[in-house]
Amino acid sequence: MLFKVLITPKKGLLDPQGRAVEELLKEKGYEGVKNVRVGKVVLLEAQSEEQVHEIAKKILVNDLIEDYTVERD
Amino acid sequence: MLFKVLITPKKGLLDPQGRAVEELLKEKGYEGVKNVRVGKVVLLEAQSEEQVHEIAKKILVNDLIEDYTVERD
Repeated sequence: MLFKVLITPKKGLLDPQGRAVEELLKEKGYEGVKNVRVGKVVLLEAQSEEQVHEIAKKILVNDLIEDYTVERD
Repeated sequence: MLFKVLITPKKGLLDPQGRAVEELLKEKGYEGVKNVRVGKVVLLEAQSEEQVHEIAKKILVNDLIEDYTVERD
């Protein structure tokens, strides 16, 4: 089974990469773009959604500063 | 409107970060995990899906080495 793990900086935490992209888009004249956040996506084949959650919690995600969601692909 | 831009290394190209994660998961004993690929996700509010595609193509994505998809959130 194919899964996607989306890992994003927790709301309320600084996200310098997101800020940089947002500033750039404003400079380039893109109107109405806001709340830009930059994170990671990990695509993988795994045996079960439970396995993917375990991998996310133990290996991929820094729980202090990141949130994650798992989606079937 | 809230959008997600998923940016992944093109299939067939080296993905060192994905390889590293896959090796680590094997060492840790996770069975049946394969084809790990690591990419970026950009979350943003924008005016339209067309605007997001334009931003993706012109700013966010390196077309030579990356693929992307846009999803409404």
